[in-house]
Amino acid sequence: MAYRTTEARAERDKALREHILDCGMQQVAEGGFAALNMSGLAATAGVATGSLYRYFPGKGALAAEIFTRATRIEFEALREQFSRPGSAAQRLAGGVGEFAARAWHSRQLAYALIAEPVEPEVDEQRLRFREAYGELYCSLIREGNRDGSLNVEHVPLTAACLVGAVAEALVGPLSPQARAARASGLPSDSLESVTRAIIRFSLRALGAKEHSA
Amino acid sequence: MAYRTTEARAERDKALREHILDCGMQQVAEGGFAALNMSGLAATAGVATGSLYRYFPGKGALAAEIFTRATRIEFEALREQFSRPGSAAQRLAGGVGEFAARAWHSRQLAYALIAEPVEPEVDEQRLRFREAYGELYCSLIREGNRDGSLNVEHVPLTAACLVGAVAEALVGPLSPQARAARASGLPSDSLESVTRAIIRFSLRALGAKEHSA
Repeated sequence: MAYRTTEARAERDKALREHILDCGMQQVAEGGFAALNMSGLAATAGVATGSLYRYFPGKGALAAEIFTRATRIEFEALREQFSRPGSAAQRLAGGVGEFAARAWHSRQLAYALIAEPVEPEVDEQRLRFREAYGELYCSLIREGNRDGSLNVEHVPLTAACLVGAVAEALVGPLSPQARAARASGLPSDSLESVTRAIIRFSLRALGAKEHSA
Repeated sequence: MAYRTTEARAERDKALREHILDCGMQQVAEGGFAALNMSGLAATAGVATGSLYRYFPGKGALAAEIFTRATRIEFEALREQFSRPGSAAQRLAGGVGEFAARAWHSRQLAYALIAEPVEPEVDEQRLRFREAYGELYCSLIREGNRDGSLNVEHVPLTAACLVGAVAEALVGPLSPQARAARASGLPSDSLESVTRAIIRFSLRALGAKEHSA
């Protein structure tokens, strides 16, 4: 019985932790990491602030975990796109387009993940994921070199360039300034024009025969 | 006389502030932003820790100012390169090559500026400078569209891609891991191979007729 009680408790603990992370992700999706605070989150999640600190030592650690959770979803979506049928160049175009579209439809969250000024703990995870994205692009570029749809000499460095290019291109269009401009009816880039520019940039940079997507 | 005294005092204040920033920059150049701390810096600069707080409200503000100071030097060096004679494509290749070489020769500082996990105040300045770099690239790309050496449709987005690509490509080679590998004699990228890859990537991405630098 003692074993079962411990197990049940661990389950409950895990479920509560997940619930807190869900609530935190919601806050970040609505107001960025700037909107995340321990006492507000405790209230939303329906736990005492002290309990919150039992699960997460501080805001930095909590933010880093929310970041990791949200970024992993995007990472897996891109990996899934890259594993579809088609030439590497086609999959690159499809994956990057889908990545931009997903960011576009959760702008506040995407901006928070890519660019919002944050605690060093989140910056650390950003570095780690950019490396992982780099490896994902590396595999795809190698496939492209083999299937002839891409032509790249220095694969890891080119992959890193691509990671930086795709992320940085989205910063402006997703920024609070762009969102404010859009909200007040000022002219701004459409998802289509942003996606077209990023894909064109990427395919040309990787020596794809067909430069337009 | 009172006016002169005030003026002299303001001069002294300014000189001391500069001296503190110089010492801080030195610390960052030697150990990254992680090595920067208020009491250590006060000792190095020969001032009381309390005086330090009179000039900078905290480590984040101090780090942001050191960042700005160091990054402005790199920014101006790139602007200077871009204003030399030659086609836009040639100036792009020259500027990016020089930018990488400068980073290479102050690896710890360059890594701290580009990628080290830091206080949100520094992240804010990073965003601001990336925007400024974007504008610098925009002007050059427009010149390239005019002189026929480049061929870019969506100039601002392409400029942003380039900012991200150049920065991200340097993160790996400048990282502490790469420095450690190099120090222990493991094979690692040379400045020449990194520069060649970045320039090739950039020129192809911008539709330069001559893809190799």
